[in-house]
Formats: sequence, C-alpha cells, structure tokens
Amino acid sequence: MVALVKKRSGKAGLPPGSLVHIGKRRGVKPAITLIRYDEAGFEEGKAAGVSECFPLVDEGRVTWINVEGVDDPDTVRQVGEQLGLHPLVLEDILNTEQRPKLEDYGGYLYIVLRMLSCPAGTGGILSEQVSLVLGPNYVISFQEGIEGDVFDPLRERIRTAGGQVRKSGADYLAYRLIDSVVDGYFSVLERLEDTIDSLEGELLKDPGPGTIQSIHNLKREMIFLRKSVWPLREVVSSLERGESSLIRESTGVYLRDVYDHALRIIDSEETLRDILSGMLDIYLSSVSTRLNSVMKTLTIIATIFMPLTFLAGVYGMNFRFMPELEWRLGYPVFWSLIVLIGIGMFIYFRRKKWL
Amino acid sequence: MVALVKKRSGKAGLPPGSLVHIGKRRGVKPAITLIRYDEAGFEEGKAAGVSECFPLVDEGRVTWINVEGVDDPDTVRQVGEQLGLHPLVLEDILNTEQRPKLEDYGGYLYIVLRMLSCPAGTGGILSEQVSLVLGPNYVISFQEGIEGDVFDPLRERIRTAGGQVRKSGADYLAYRLIDSVVDGYFSVLERLEDTIDSLEGELLKDPGPGTIQSIHNLKREMIFLRKSVWPLREVVSSLERGESSLIRESTGVYLRDVYDHALRIIDSEETLRDILSGMLDIYLSSVSTRLNSVMKTLTIIATIFMPLTFLAGVYGMNFRFMPELEWRLGYPVFWSLIVLIGIGMFIYFRRKKWL
Amino acid sequence: MVALVKKRSGKAGLPPGSLVHIGKRRGVKPAITLIRYDEAGFEEGKAAGVSECFPLVDEGRVTWINVEGVDDPDTVRQVGEQLGLHPLVLEDILNTEQRPKLEDYGGYLYIVLRMLSCPAGTGGILSEQVSLVLGPNYVISFQEGIEGDVFDPLRERIRTAGGQVRKSGADYLAYRLIDSVVDGYFSVLERLEDTIDSLEGELLKDPGPGTIQSIHNLKREMIFLRKSVWPLREVVSSLERGESSLIRESTGVYLRDVYDHALRIIDSEETLRDILSGMLDIYLSSVSTRLNSVMKTLTIIATIFMPLTFLAGVYGMNFRFMPELEWRLGYPVFWSLIVLIGIGMFIYFRRKKWL
Amino acid sequence: MVALVKKRSGKAGLPPGSLVHIGKRRGVKPAITLIRYDEAGFEEGKAAGVSECFPLVDEGRVTWINVEGVDDPDTVRQVGEQLGLHPLVLEDILNTEQRPKLEDYGGYLYIVLRMLSCPAGTGGILSEQVSLVLGPNYVISFQEGIEGDVFDPLRERIRTAGGQVRKSGADYLAYRLIDSVVDGYFSVLERLEDTIDSLEGELLKDPGPGTIQSIHNLKREMIFLRKSVWPLREVVSSLERGESSLIRESTGVYLRDVYDHALRIIDSEETLRDILSGMLDIYLSSVSTRLNSVMKTLTIIATIFMPLTFLAGVYGMNFRFMPELEWRLGYPVFWSLIVLIGIGMFIYFRRKKWL
Amino acid sequence: MVALVKKRSGKAGLPPGSLVHIGKRRGVKPAITLIRYDEAGFEEGKAAGVSECFPLVDEGRVTWINVEGVDDPDTVRQVGEQLGLHPLVLEDILNTEQRPKLEDYGGYLYIVLRMLSCPAGTGGILSEQVSLVLGPNYVISFQEGIEGDVFDPLRERIRTAGGQVRKSGADYLAYRLIDSVVDGYFSVLERLEDTIDSLEGELLKDPGPGTIQSIHNLKREMIFLRKSVWPLREVVSSLERGESSLIRESTGVYLRDVYDHALRIIDSEETLRDILSGMLDIYLSSVSTRLNSVMKTLTIIATIFMPLTFLAGVYGMNFRFMPELEWRLGYPVFWSLIVLIGIGMFIYFRRKKWL
Repeated sequence: MVALVKKRSGKAGLPPGSLVHIGKRRGVKPAITLIRYDEAGFEEGKAAGVSECFPLVDEGRVTWINVEGVDDPDTVRQVGEQLGLHPLVLEDILNTEQRPKLEDYGGYLYIVLRMLSCPAGTGGILSEQVSLVLGPNYVISFQEGIEGDVFDPLRERIRTAGGQVRKSGADYLAYRLIDSVVDGYFSVLERLEDTIDSLEGELLKDPGPGTIQSIHNLKREMIFLRKSVWPLREVVSSLERGESSLIRESTGVYLRDVYDHALRIIDSEETLRDILSGMLDIYLSSVSTRLNSVMKTLTIIATIFMPLTFLAGVYGMNFRFMPELEWRLGYPVFWSLIVLIGIGMFIYFRRKKWL
Repeated sequence: MVALVKKRSGKAGLPPGSLVHIGKRRGVKPAITLIRYDEAGFEEGKAAGVSECFPLVDEGRVTWINVEGVDDPDTVRQVGEQLGLHPLVLEDILNTEQRPKLEDYGGYLYIVLRMLSCPAGTGGILSEQVSLVLGPNYVISFQEGIEGDVFDPLRERIRTAGGQVRKSGADYLAYRLIDSVVDGYFSVLERLEDTIDSLEGELLKDPGPGTIQSIHNLKREMIFLRKSVWPLREVVSSLERGESSLIRESTGVYLRDVYDHALRIIDSEETLRDILSGMLDIYLSSVSTRLNSVMKTLTIIATIFMPLTFLAGVYGMNFRFMPELEWRLGYPVFWSLIVLIGIGMFIYFRRKKWL
Repeated sequence: MVALVKKRSGKAGLPPGSLVHIGKRRGVKPAITLIRYDEAGFEEGKAAGVSECFPLVDEGRVTWINVEGVDDPDTVRQVGEQLGLHPLVLEDILNTEQRPKLEDYGGYLYIVLRMLSCPAGTGGILSEQVSLVLGPNYVISFQEGIEGDVFDPLRERIRTAGGQVRKSGADYLAYRLIDSVVDGYFSVLERLEDTIDSLEGELLKDPGPGTIQSIHNLKREMIFLRKSVWPLREVVSSLERGESSLIRESTGVYLRDVYDHALRIIDSEETLRDILSGMLDIYLSSVSTRLNSVMKTLTIIATIFMPLTFLAGVYGMNFRFMPELEWRLGYPVFWSLIVLIGIGMFIYFRRKKWL
Repeated sequence: MVALVKKRSGKAGLPPGSLVHIGKRRGVKPAITLIRYDEAGFEEGKAAGVSECFPLVDEGRVTWINVEGVDDPDTVRQVGEQLGLHPLVLEDILNTEQRPKLEDYGGYLYIVLRMLSCPAGTGGILSEQVSLVLGPNYVISFQEGIEGDVFDPLRERIRTAGGQVRKSGADYLAYRLIDSVVDGYFSVLERLEDTIDSLEGELLKDPGPGTIQSIHNLKREMIFLRKSVWPLREVVSSLERGESSLIRESTGVYLRDVYDHALRIIDSEETLRDILSGMLDIYLSSVSTRLNSVMKTLTIIATIFMPLTFLAGVYGMNFRFMPELEWRLGYPVFWSLIVLIGIGMFIYFRRKKWL
Repeated sequence: MVALVKKRSGKAGLPPGSLVHIGKRRGVKPAITLIRYDEAGFEEGKAAGVSECFPLVDEGRVTWINVEGVDDPDTVRQVGEQLGLHPLVLEDILNTEQRPKLEDYGGYLYIVLRMLSCPAGTGGILSEQVSLVLGPNYVISFQEGIEGDVFDPLRERIRTAGGQVRKSGADYLAYRLIDSVVDGYFSVLERLEDTIDSLEGELLKDPGPGTIQSIHNLKREMIFLRKSVWPLREVVSSLERGESSLIRESTGVYLRDVYDHALRIIDSEETLRDILSGMLDIYLSSVSTRLNSVMKTLTIIATIFMPLTFLAGVYGMNFRFMPELEWRLGYPVFWSLIVLIGIGMFIYFRRKKWL
C-alpha cells in the first residue's frame, strides 16, 4: 500500500537547511555517473567521488551528472558546495517526500519530480523522487536508486551521434529527463485501467466484500497518482511559460508537448475516478437487489407454508366434534386443498413478477 | 464500449518526434484528395501520392488537401517535409489519441479535433481524430478513415459557385471543417437523450439490475463526450480571440458561433448528467420501496397466521382435562374465533396503510 | 415535461447563415407591431409587412418593432435586409433553442433571452425565446408568439406621457424589455417554491413512490431555470459593464438593478436546490425508518408466537409418559405460562423501545 | 420557518423606481430619530416628520437619521427627495427582500444589510433588512422595526464624550452600524451550534424520525445565514478596498476587521455544515445498524424455535409405529435434546458475534 | 472534542479596540522573556514587567519579547502603548479565537497563527493562538501559555553562536517562529494518519457503531486542521510575495519553503479526507453485506424447516382415514423424506451460492 501522508515531524526543531535524510531509506550506496557531450562527441563514466566531476570547465559541452542514492547526506553536500547551491535545495534533495515543484534560484533551476512505475510481477506502484538541478550547461539529477532506470533509453540516444539531444543544450536534456518521468505515468495509468476493467467484470459476475475493498485500494492509488501529476503539471507549465532565461525558446515547444501529456494523464485519471464512483453505485445497488431477492424467497416460502401449516394444525386438533375428521375422503380432500392453495399462490407471485 | 484511457506507454523511451502510429489501427490505405478553389473556379482530384499536391504555387487560391488514413507514417512524413512542419506536429497527427488542442507554430496552426458520430444500426459512438494544419492559403486535414464523411456537404458547397466559402480564405475553410465536426456532437447528444428517455420509461415501469448497468454505460459515454467537447471549447475560444494572424477578423464572428455551439453542447451534456444522477436516486429509492413492500407482505402473512397456528396448536394438545374440547360447539367456535382474528388483523393493517 | 436538450442536428451540413426555422413550431402567423415615441408623443400601429416599418428616418425618436412569430423565415430575412444584419444573427433569431447571449456587431447589439412563464391552470413552465436587436435609435424584438405578453404593461407606460421610458433612448427601452423578462422568472420561482412546500408536506405525512418522481421532475424544471438564468446573468453583466457605446451611462444603473435581480434568482434557485436535495435525504431515511418499523413488527410477532407455538406443540406430542398431561391443572397452568411469557416479552420489547 | 425565496412577482410590470412596499408588512408606524454630533457635543431627538431633519446644514457635524418602519412609502420618498436619492435606491429600501449589496452613486453610498437575531424564548431566527445611505457628513439608516435594537449600545457610545466615534466622521459611524449587524451573526451562529450539539447528543442516544427533520430544518436556517453573509462579505470587501472617496483611509483598518469577522462567520458556517452532513451519515448508518440488530433478533428466534417446533411436531404425529413414543424416558430425552439444541445454537450465535 | 465555532457574541456592543479577553481562559499568569542578539552575542532574561523591556534602543540588535499568557489585558495594553500598536491589534491578541491572518500596519506586521500539537498521552489536538508583531528590529510573540513550548529548539539555536539566525534580522526570526508552528502540523497529521490506519483495520475486522462515530470525530478534527492551515497558507504567501519592506529578499526563499510545507499539509489533509470518505462507503457497504448474510441465514432456516414442520403437522392430523399412518414403515419413510428434502435444499442453496 502506498503511504499517502508524508512524515516530516522527525525533523521538527532543526534549523532550515539541516542536511538530514528524510523519507524511506533505500540502503543504496550513492553511485555517480557522468556524461559530457556536444554535437561532436561525448564521454561517459562512473565517478568514484563528487570531486572528480568538478569543476565544469568546458562551456561548450553539456554535462549530466546523475547521482543514484540519496540516503547519504555527504554526497549531496559536496555537490552543493561545488555548485554553490542554496542550503534549502540540498535539504529538499535529501527529503524524498517532496511535492513536485520548480524553484528558480537565478543561476540555476531546482526541479522536484515524482517518478512512478509498475514493475511487472509486483502488485503496486513504485514511487521515487527525482531532483534536477539545471544550470547553464549542466544538469545534475538525483534519484533514490530504485531498481530499473527509465533514463537508459535517453543515455542510448546521447551515445548515438546525430540525435536532437546532442545538438541541443542542457535545457533540452532536462526536458528529456522530465519527459521520461511523465512517460512512466502512462504505464501506471494502463495498469490502473486494467485493474478497473477486471474489477468491472467481477462486479457484474460475482461481487463480494472484497470488491469494495479493491475499489477502495484503487482509489488510494489514484489519489496518489493525482497528488503527483497535478503539481507536475504546474512545474511544466512554469517551465514552458519561459520565465527563466535558462530555458531556450526552441525548447518551449517540447515542454508544451510534455504539458499536453500531463493534461492527458489528468484527463484519464479523472475519467477513471468517475468510473470508480459509478462502480461503487453499481455495487451498492446490486447488494440491495440481492437483498430484495433473498427477501422475496423468504416471503414466498412463508406465504405458501404458513397457511398450509395452519390447516394441518387445525386438523390435528382434538375437538370431540369435528365432522371433517370422520369423512371418508377427508384426507384426500385436505391434500387437494393444499395443492390448490399452492397453485394459487404460485400464480399470484408470478403475476407480481416475484417468480 | 468506448475505451476511455489513452494508451501511449508503447512509445515510452522513444525520442520526441519519432514517427510511429499510436492508437487503434484502422487498416485504411491513405487516400489523398485535393481541392483548389477561389471565387472564380475550383478543381478537384484524387492524388496518388503526396508529391503530386505540392508545391502550393498559386497564392490567390485556397488549397485543401484531405488525407484519409494515418496508419502509415510515410504519407504524413512526406506532407511534413513539403510544408516544413515541426516533428512534434507529425508525431501528434500519427498518435490518434490526442486531446483536442490548438498549437500556433507561427507560420501555421495545428488543430486537433475529435469527431464523434452515431451511425444508425450500431449501438455506440464512433470516434475519430481529425487533425488540421492551417496555413496562409491551405488547409491540410487528416482523418483516421472511418466510414462516412461529414465533410461531404462542405465539398458540395465548394463545388457550388457563389457560396460564402468560395469567396473566403483558408481560415474560413478551417472554420467550416470545425463546424462540421461540432455539428456531429449534436447528433450524439440526441442519441444519448433518446437513450435516457427510454431508460427513464423503463425505470418507472420495470427497473431491473440491467437498468443500473445501462445508466453506468451511458455515464461512460457522456464522460467520453465531455472529455472531447471541453478542450474543443478551449480550441475554438483561442481561435476566436484572434491571437493568430492567420485568422481574419471576418472569420471571428463565425468562430464565435461555433463557440456558442460548443457551450450549448456542454450545457446539454451537464443537463443530461444531472438527469442521470437523478435516475440513480430514483432507482435506489424504488429498490428500497419494493423491499418495503415485500417485507410488508411477509409481516402481514406472519402476523395473521402465527397466532392462528398457535391456537390450532393449543387445541391439538393432549391434556386430559381441556373442557373446550368436549364442548359441542367447540369446533365452530374455534373457526369463528379464527375469522374474527383475521378480520381484526385486516382492519389493523388497513389503518396502518399497509394494505 | 420540458425538453432539456436542444435538437439541432437537423441542420447539420447546411452552411452557416442558412435561414431555416429550428425548434418547436408554434404555428403563429408573424404579427408586426410598431411603436415610435419621443418625450413629446408617440404613435403605435400594426404593420402588415416588414417594409412598412422601414426606413427608420427620424433620428430623434425611438422605434420599437415587435415581431411575434418566427416560424416563417421570410419576415426575419426582410428585417435583416433592411437593417443590414449579419446572416448569423438571422439564423439565431430563427433557431429558437439558443442559449441566452449578447453579441456586439459594432453598429447594433444582438441579445437572446429566454422568457419563462407559468400560466395559471397549466402545470408546467412555458418557455419562449426573445431576441432583441438594439441599434442607436431602435429596438427590434422577436417573440415566438406564445399566448400572453409580458410586454403589455411596458406598452402602457410608453403610451403614458411623462414616464421615464419616454424621456430615455433605445437602450433604456431594451433594459425595460430585459427587465420584463427577468420579472417573469420570479413568478416561476414562486410556483416552484409552492410546489416544494406542498411536496414537503406530503413528505412528512404520506411519502410514496410518486413523491420521489415529483422531486425528480422538479429538479428537471430547476435545471431548466438554471440553464436560462446563468447565461442571462452574463448577458446583463456585459451590458452593464458599458463596453458598448450603444448603452448610455445613465442606463447602467438600471442594468445593475436587473443584474441584482438575476443574482437573487440564482440565489433562490440554489436555495431551492439545496432544499430538494435535503428532501431526497428525508425521503430515503423515512423509507429506511418505515422498513425498520415493519421489521420490528414482524420480529415482535415471531418472537412472541414462536415459543408459544413450540410449547403448544410439545403438549401435543404423543409420548406415552408425559406426566403434565395427566395433571388436573395442566391446561390452566399452560395458559398461565403462555400469559406470563407474553407479558415478559412485552416488557422486554418496551425496554428495548420497540413498542 | 424562514421563507427562503424572495417573492417579488407582485410588482411585475411596474416601472423601475415605483415606490411600493414589497415584503412582509411589520405594521410599524415609521419612527424617526435624529442624532447630531461632533467631538465637542451631540444632540438627539425624535422627529415627527422627515422635514424636521433637513436640511443638513452644519458641515462640521455628523448627522445620523434612523428611520424605523418602512411599510409606508411616504417617509422614504420624502427622505429621497430631500437628499436627491436615485429612485432605484428608494425602491430597494422599500423592498425588504434585497440581497446585501453596496452601490456607489457618486455623492453617496447605498448599503443593504440583513440583520439576524435570535431573541431568547423564540425558536427561530429573526431577519430584518437594514439600509444605509452614507453621505459626506450623514448616515441615514432604515430598519424594518422589529423589536429590540442592536444599535442602542452604539447610541450610548455617541452620548459618551471622548469615544472614538465622536472623533470620527460619518464613514466611521457607518462602519459601527455594519459592525453591530455583523456581531448579531455570531449570536445566531452560537444558537445554531447549541442546537447542533443537542442534536448530536440525541443522535447518539435516541435517534428518531424527528432528528432527521431537525437536521433538515437546521440546514435551511444555515442556508439562510449563508445567503446573508456571503454577499455581506463582498459589501465589506468593496468598502475596505477604498474605492469610494467617502471612506477615509483611517476607517479602512476597521472595515478590514469587520471583513475578518465575516470570514470567521463563513468559516464557522461551513464547519457547521460539514458537521451536519456528517450527522446525516451517522443517522443513516445507525438506522442500518438497528435494522441489522432487529433482523438478527428475528433470525436467532427463528433459528432456535423452528427446529424445536419441528421436533415437537414430529412427536405429535399419529403413526402407529413410532418406537420413541413408547419409551419410558422418551419425554425427558426429548427435553434434553431441546435443551442441547438450544445451547448449541446459543454457542453458535456467540461465535458469530450475534449475541 | 475541539470546539469548532468561535464564540464572540459576549462582546457584542462593545466598541472596537476594547481590551477584553475573549476565548478559553488558561489561568496563566503572564510570563515575559526577553532575548536580544546580534551576530556577536546575545543576552536573555525574564522580565518582571513590560516596562523593563522597553525602549528598544539598540538598532543593530534583534529583540525578541515572548509573552506567555494573555488572560490579562494589562500586559498586552502596556506592550501596545510602548510600541504604539493599533487598538485593533491589541483586541485581536486578546481574542484567542482569531482566524490566522496577516495585517500590515506600515511600521509593523501583525501575524496571527494557530499552533496545534498532540501531546503524548492525551487523545486530542491542543490548539493555541500565537500572535506575532514584527517590527524593523524586534519580534513580539504572544502565546496562550499551554504547557510545552515548540520555540525551545529555536532559543537553543540563538544561544549557539554562528547559526543562521544570529546572522539574520528580525524577519528571519519571525520566519523561524512561523516554521516552528508549521512543523507542529506535521505531527498532528501523523497522529491523524495513525488513527485512520487503526480505524481502517477495525473496519475490515470488526466494524461497529463506534467505528462510524470515530470516523465522525476524526472528520471534525480534520475540519479543524483545515480551517487552521488554509488561512496560514495565505499568510505565508502574502509574506513571501514581499509586499512589506520589513521582509528582506533573502528571507523570501525561506518563506517559500514554509509555503511549500503548508501546501504539503493541505495535500495530506485532502488525501486523508478522501480516504475517510472511502471508509464511510466501506462501512455502509459492509453493513449492507452483513444484513444480506443475516437474511440469508433466516431464509435458509425458514425454507428448510417450514416444509418439514408442515409435513410433521400433516401426520399429526386426526383424520380417521389416513392410510400412511397405518403403514409399518410409515415413520422411517417420513424421516427418509425429511432427510431427502433437507439434502435437496442444501444443494439448492449451494448452487445459489448462499452457503
């Protein structure tokens, strides 16, 4: 189950900018990879420490430093010192329960995103915070270090000469990173839709108390998705509006495309939500309908057998003078009466559409 | 059933601008028709390939190229090359699960619409994406190639000399195409209204579990309609506000008319939604009311026969000393008592308005 | 029942500005009345044809042409030709299923309103479209021609020398026409309130399945009212903001008054809607409560008579050795037991507050 | 019960500015009181007629004329003539069913407020319209003349030398009048809260059909409060924004305080509304829960006694060859069986948590 | 239970600026602590009276006066006189039922906050009003004096040389105070989440009428939280927008951080609210499901035993000629029949999935 409320109180009382890891510990040793490229070529490598990556001398090339694993405040602090990042940025990178947001610190942009994925085989949604620091000619990305990396196809593109990304600047690289994150939302949406489809089938065939629980769990996951994608929409919208000089105009049209994707995700999420609400109505009405059918059964049985039992009781009485009891045909007449009453009741209930 | 969530994840990882068809394949071979007209005359024809249509030499005439079938990326790519369209535009034309939108690329406008229709004989709503590229003197329209073409009456108008469309420019042609699409929404609305009317009748006469399922399905179709018409409203509103120099002022008043139609569609959709919600309430209350009536029947039967059965049981007891059993009139008195109790109960239930 | 969705598809494919009547045909032959006035005097008359009314020579006087009945496109077309109205305006006048709106065509304003009335004796709301064309010194009003005319008191005022209307211009006349329409909404509101009041009484005394149906119908009527008054509010607000030079500043304060009335109508409509929702809750809870009371009756009956019947059954057994059966006082003791059990049950249910 | 919809249709057709009293007649003869003050001194008196109060010669002093009772249009008309008020203002003063509003007529402000009070001993909310006309050096207030006057403490303050009100202008006096009205809302809120508290207790101890009716009535009163306080908030907000030159800047901070009070009233009202909704949920779920408990009782009784009665029935059969009947211990064994079955059932229901 | 509606009516009629304590009396004698610091050093002490703290001579240092306990208007009045605060500010400090707000009085800012805490061992939320007066080089804070002080860690930071707070001005101190208050909200959120988690477990295992009551209580607490945090968000947003010259630009980025925290609190609160609503649905559907299961039990019992009892009744009849009674195997055949009917019923109910 996704934990929906972010815990933070452990840090209450500490001064702002204190570098303490907040959130779920992943137990990942920080791994730093460095890619430097321009249209002409690229170089790639793993760095043993932060100091290897700095300084970012060559102005003409784009540098992408990816830090995987933020359990350890040290790496983050060193990156911050090298680039002169504001303490609050470092604090937010370490607190992996941020809300997606964009902050413009003049010389660089700080972007927080939430990456969602549904690995095959597991039932739930994996969530990971991705922080981006976008400078004039560099992007530093921080991941929590969950298995599987949606940035791999992008790395492959950079290695390929002639791609758009090699020709463009750091802002385009940041766009591609954001786009990769947003693409992950579509696969989450698809899994949610599949679950809803199968729930809908279950609802029509064999609804049980588990169905309502599944609907409830699905709702929680969709709340989680919504809480991630709405602020993301705002982040991309701010970027696209071109308020920062770090975003070139040519990148704007691509950001508009991402914005469009975010809108479609929101649209789909709202649609699924409406469908879920409808399913709850169907469930409740099906429970009522079944109750009705149970009660009809009971009423039919009672209505048929109560008069019959009464009649049998009457002829079990011990009054001395009960002429019927002496009749030769008393017993067959009794059974004929019973059968007549039964048939009458049956016709009556048919007419009332209870049978 | 309309699929409400757009699948896109198949493309995750590809660079933006990759020309891959996304969405439901229609299996339609691209068919290109070309219409060129001005006030003086017009020419019309089918083109075997994209190259036949270009270049768009004569400035004074309006060229309308209609491409039916976008399964094949090649045709779209060739059109894009001829006109110098942005790769993202081509990508969006090929992805037939776009949200209606308007994008201004300076030299041309890119408009995505969703065309809805309810062909007689089928139960559902057909949906098709229509992309328009509006340049200074041309409109390129892309359809998915579903049977039936709402643009035929417009073609007929172009063929007729003296119509408004022949006197006007490419922007007016684009307006007419949008207007044709919006007109299709009204017929969808009418079918939805008819379905609701017949459901309402069913609800009052003979509601069953199927009714609630039909309401649910209708809701899904209306969600689909809403998701198409709300962004359309924004598209038309942007066009009308005259932010692009490609839209002449004289066309603005017509766009305002389309905008007005979009508002009326939204109005009607909201109204139908409110009515559907009300129908759910009626259904649930009718289920409750019928349960009440079933339970009343049961209670009446039990209340009448339980005391009677008890009385019959009493006189079936084998106590040695039961004076009533010896009475001459014991048995007739018993029956009189039974009838009296029965009548009393009947009056009691009448007073309680249960009968 | 009010039809809530506007049908329009019959016109799909026709070019914009086609003069075809859309909507419910009233079968009314167009009747044209002409009033011309200034502070000094007025003249009034019925015109046999449109041409009699034009041209509108004298600048100093206000001309009010009222056309009753728009089934016939001809009259409207002639008016349009005389005044040089835009084809879309004529189309909208003929389509009597417009949404209330205001359109500024520079030289004149086109205003669509919906007039509602509740004639005594009929159960429902009558709805009629009123179109106004307001020029510098004239107002042309188009009505559908339903019986009863709310403009009569206004005509009377014009005939009276010294009234405000005689001293003011065409914009003030338009305001008075709008005001007359808005005043009609209050009477509709009052009828709705009366219906709600009587429904509320019914709900408390004797709710039945018909009650829920009445609530549903009332809701539909209120949806209809809301759909008319919200856009009307926008129309009046646009007029009041004084964006058109055709509206003098002195008229603004009167339009603010109408705007205020529209707000009050919306307020009241929302209030009634809230009350209706509350009534649905009361109905559903009263159904539940009655079910509870039915079930209590059943349970009480069963709880009392089942043990008694069992006891009677016991003493109806044919075991050879049942000492009680031989007792002299067996039968009276049995009855005493029965009475004791009955009293005990009664006390028990009293304590449980079931009786 | 508070009437929620304002009737106005009685006036339909009359020209605007017609001086006719609309609303509930109070049967109060207009009483005019006059207070004139500046920092140095004050004079106070009852005026027999409107003419006594005018003209408002002395510029340096503030004049407050309070008119109690607006059934009679004459007094209002005379005030209007003396001050040159717009006919629409006079019309609105006489129509005691206005929505709170602020209108700026240049030389004076017209303010409509709704005064609410809960006199001890009565069950409901009393509502009275208060109109204020604020000029450069005067305030004219119109009340409907309900018993009890919340302005008395303010009069006392004016009589006391040295108070803030004596040092300030007419705008401050208007602020104090508005503040007095707003203060009355708090007492209404408190009564509503008390009622909700006692309803909540009733809900937990002994909910009945009356509870739901009380919740419904409370909702209506809260709708009424909301409809009064939301427009009031707008009125105060407009005043505070200082758009009128009649409001000095020093008064702005006090108006901000009133605005704050209005916000708190809205906050509290929303809170109470949320609580009321929650109470409805509790009621419905408690009805369901009680139904469950009734049905359990019934089921337990039936489940225990039906098998027993059957068994008793079996041994009441008259088969010639029933060996058990001949047993010496048949009867005691029967009773032991009965007791065993009873205990078994009891344990079974305990396990199912039904007992 | 948290009282949600603020009482104020006790003060109705008093002039604005009257210094009377409104709200819950805490019975705390005012305690004044004084801290003065700059980068070089700091001094700290308790003041016996207000006069000891003033005047605030040294411009270069920041003075923080903390007043704990506002039952007594005297202390507040003296502070107000020393600093020349507006009477409305003093009134608001004494009325501990304010809505969080920010007021800019030019020379100083007045900020009202609500501090929430969940002390271990108590079940509820403690609420305390904190008022801040921020001047050029001083902050005066007023607390109600509830036990436990969230400002202690901050004091400790001031005592430590070299911290950010010692280097910064009074505006940074105010930020730190606000941040401390906001941090308290996270712990409240966590407690609410824990309660919801345990309620969710209860709901799945053993829901009872108490569950719905707990959900209702939780809702009330969340309403209370919401009412505190939404206006707080506005306060911080106003501060951050830098409209006051008292807030240095360097502090803006920190305020943006607090704003972000407020957004996260709102996000979490909304999430919890959605989950609570879902829980209500689950509860209601589980009640319905259990009712269904109870009714099934009853129906099964009745359906099995009613025919059997009837049959036993039949053979208890005293007809003289009933051939079965004379059969040797009559009794065993009867029992076989009973068992057969029982098995048949059992199979029937299995097929219907009732067992």
